[in-house]
Amino acid sequence: MISEDKIIQDLKTASRGFIGDDAAILPHVNPGNRYVISKDVFIEDVHFRTSYFTSADLAHKALHVNLSDIAAMGAEPLYILCGISIPSNEQDYAIRFLDSLTAICQNIGVTLIGGDTTASLDRLFVSITALGQAPEANIKYRNASKVGDLICVIGNLGFAHLGFLGLEQSLTTSTKYINSFLRPQAKIKEGIWLGNQPVVSSMMDISDGLYIDLKRLASSSKKHAVIDMDWLQSHLTPEVSLHIALEGGEDYGLLVTVHQDSLEELSYRFTESFGYNLKIIGHITNGEGVSFTEDNKPAEIIVNHFAHFGERL
Amino acid sequence: MISEDKIIQDLKTASRGFIGDDAAILPHVNPGNRYVISKDVFIEDVHFRTSYFTSADLAHKALHVNLSDIAAMGAEPLYILCGISIPSNEQDYAIRFLDSLTAICQNIGVTLIGGDTTASLDRLFVSITALGQAPEANIKYRNASKVGDLICVIGNLGFAHLGFLGLEQSLTTSTKYINSFLRPQAKIKEGIWLGNQPVVSSMMDISDGLYIDLKRLASSSKKHAVIDMDWLQSHLTPEVSLHIALEGGEDYGLLVTVHQDSLEELSYRFTESFGYNLKIIGHITNGEGVSFTEDNKPAEIIVNHFAHFGERL
Repeated sequence: MISEDKIIQDLKTASRGFIGDDAAILPHVNPGNRYVISKDVFIEDVHFRTSYFTSADLAHKALHVNLSDIAAMGAEPLYILCGISIPSNEQDYAIRFLDSLTAICQNIGVTLIGGDTTASLDRLFVSITALGQAPEANIKYRNASKVGDLICVIGNLGFAHLGFLGLEQSLTTSTKYINSFLRPQAKIKEGIWLGNQPVVSSMMDISDGLYIDLKRLASSSKKHAVIDMDWLQSHLTPEVSLHIALEGGEDYGLLVTVHQDSLEELSYRFTESFGYNLKIIGHITNGEGVSFTEDNKPAEIIVNHFAHFGERL
Repeated sequence: MISEDKIIQDLKTASRGFIGDDAAILPHVNPGNRYVISKDVFIEDVHFRTSYFTSADLAHKALHVNLSDIAAMGAEPLYILCGISIPSNEQDYAIRFLDSLTAICQNIGVTLIGGDTTASLDRLFVSITALGQAPEANIKYRNASKVGDLICVIGNLGFAHLGFLGLEQSLTTSTKYINSFLRPQAKIKEGIWLGNQPVVSSMMDISDGLYIDLKRLASSSKKHAVIDMDWLQSHLTPEVSLHIALEGGEDYGLLVTVHQDSLEELSYRFTESFGYNLKIIGHITNGEGVSFTEDNKPAEIIVNHFAHFGERL
């Protein structure tokens, strides 16, 4: 069996002195700033398969899924802790995973400050805790969308789900979809930028799918969200159906609501900063839940409940 | 399948408003204080069995194992995040686990501020991240033991391992040992108290066993630790052999080094505060590693390497 002390020794080198005690000590936040913290779990054959996730893909995805949560608050990711449980036949994979994880962290300025390594019987388990920092005034919540706000998506819709289907069913699928599933890019810079825009009333990331995540935002804000199917359709590539756009998860884009009078100017500055466009998909009204319009008329759309990747396999 | 939203709804009620966004926002630390953070992983059939761990036992243990890390830094535990992955046939167990976890947290003044719930294929997986706070000057490290310091243990040695053996081999074993394994008590108050004592030069918790953890403390301090077998023996109950005391893990006591001239007074005040005694087991010298003496002469003791519970099953 792999020695826990050996792994910890290797991680210590990459952790700039954080690892080595029972707990890591967090540096002080900058004045006026706050820490935000989130945690995700990744399980073999539920969230990933080692047959098509290389250890570097898994490191990228486990990290970015967490950093996406931090970015969705308007915060800058700074630290992670990584818990990993390793079956005896996957020790090499796990060591390469940890090597990739520390390398990717170094590249993006995130420091691994702690964790836990244990044995596992038959599946690899990874759990990452991520910490970020933001000026208190920049932190965005789900519960503050206002009636009349426009709903915008940052990033692609349905790409990761198409990649997932391609990999699971061995279909010929464009690498852009495959990569969206294997290596989603957390919208880190975009999240920090949007956190700094007072006209953004609420923000969250899209992890489980546009429909269910928008429903959460609406519920949290005690408002009703209307998706304009014509607008939504206009943002999709030919391979992405409306259903995949609504139900497909794991794209890790951002969902934001913006004061309607301010959107044009914000949208212009966003494109100027990031080289791609915000996608307007609907608006917020009084009420609850999510509904649809098409040709300016109410539309009935049956949305399947998305639960977890593991249940779709 | 259990609905993630339903679980999150229940947890929200217990989380005093922390849960509901992509990440939880940490309150500011008190002036002069620092946050400390640690993370542990618990896997079914590696760290626990549902056959003899009730859901409440598991909640207690998963929590206390983490709080022990916080206490070992001299800090007060304040917040946790809990990641849990639930196989379909253990949903009731998992819901009772989460109910117990929130109840125990409330009892000891710890707040659940976030986490992740997912499906699992066949084993329950729990990962807890714990955060605590301490005055900066009180934080204790492993690397600061000094030549001449006496080595002390706070808590029992070998109790949890005897309980583990009793449960695994269906032996008649005293409930005090069984409970030590199923429900170890993190030395929270003791850790905070010891953090406040400048004569305590280093501190860590004993999670993997006295020998291996003392070796880590010595290595971190770049010193040599000597265990006096007569002293150690004097602290053991008749059922606990020297080998079980040295190699048995999961007692979650504390290991501290104390300036020799200050120990008598510290020991007196400790007993007065907590109603039980510190156990002196050895001293720190120059060199490296851990060695033994018996009748004031060097003694050769073969210590088996302890790795993980999963490998001992």
